[in-house]
Amino acid sequence: MVTTDARDRLIASAQRLFASQGVGPTSPRQVLEVSGVGQGSLYHHFPTKHDLALAAVGASVAEALAVARAELDDDSPALDRVVAYLERPRDALGGCTIGRLTSDQAVMDDDDLRDVVTAYFVRLVGSVAAALRETGLPDDAARDLAHTAVAVVQGGYVLARATGDPGAMRAAVRGFVTLLGRTTKEDA
Amino acid sequence: MVTTDARDRLIASAQRLFASQGVGPTSPRQVLEVSGVGQGSLYHHFPTKHDLALAAVGASVAEALAVARAELDDDSPALDRVVAYLERPRDALGGCTIGRLTSDQAVMDDDDLRDVVTAYFVRLVGSVAAALRETGLPDDAARDLAHTAVAVVQGGYVLARATGDPGAMRAAVRGFVTLLGRTTKEDA
Repeated sequence: MVTTDARDRLIASAQRLFASQGVGPTSPRQVLEVSGVGQGSLYHHFPTKHDLALAAVGASVAEALAVARAELDDDSPALDRVVAYLERPRDALGGCTIGRLTSDQAVMDDDDLRDVVTAYFVRLVGSVAAALRETGLPDDAARDLAHTAVAVVQGGYVLARATGDPGAMRAAVRGFVTLLGRTTKEDA
Repeated sequence: MVTTDARDRLIASAQRLFASQGVGPTSPRQVLEVSGVGQGSLYHHFPTKHDLALAAVGASVAEALAVARAELDDDSPALDRVVAYLERPRDALGGCTIGRLTSDQAVMDDDDLRDVVTAYFVRLVGSVAAALRETGLPDDAARDLAHTAVAVVQGGYVLARATGDPGAMRAAVRGFVTLLGRTTKEDA
């Protein structure tokens, strides 16, 4: 039990450090210090930085997907679910925990880590597309529009960080939701 | 004249290195080597890395804005101009030269550099909003939708890089252009 707890603390500490400073500059030693677990535990659970990074990025992806799927897979009308995903309050200035990894060279240069990031976006777009198909959109249109929805959120983060204004992300989402609501009603 | 040429080559070399590896890890010495100019020229034109970074990021912003404005300010119908901006062929896997700076801690921690990045997005959104107002959209709706348009492009880069597939960016743009064309016609 103590061992499992140490593993979880190491992963949580790596997630926090990755989010604040990126994967590249984060050393296992820093993770060890922040986590407060013993050095033996670190090397027992994660013999290499690659093992630790894979576990931490995997955990962040699993958490982010669980949140999105809770919004996208519930029982309310399909368009409401997509709007709930889009309008979820986000830490706009902090940036997307997963999206920012695409600008982290240490992640993009590591095939295993990149695969985890790829899988996140493929599954997220797939879940949004499934909800959009339920509104009556044909397959191709639903897939395109699912890419647009996820891009609006990711680009909203970029705009908010670039301008220092969380309102820039909200404006991007609001513009899209207005268009989306209008068009989907038209189709219904 | 030789002096001006050396300055331009230093800026162009810094732009290339920033685009490929980020501002933080790029040293003036690397820029010097890539540019092939003399060390005296570097320190004459750019006494500090901050001076060089400001000139190079400023040049990238000026170039990117000039391209966007050529699309957004010409004589064709307003919606066609916005679509031209959205559908411009882009190096999706390379990422946006300016957008990626928002994930570069060395840029975000430097007030002057961050101001240059902010000014780019404020002006770009302003140009898109101006074109959208010409389609007959009210001010607020045009501003929101301009944020959406720029977010779709920026998020399209993130999706393409995350999935290793330039088609992901094209799908995001296609989904948005389809919605946009339909709605704007409805308003016309």
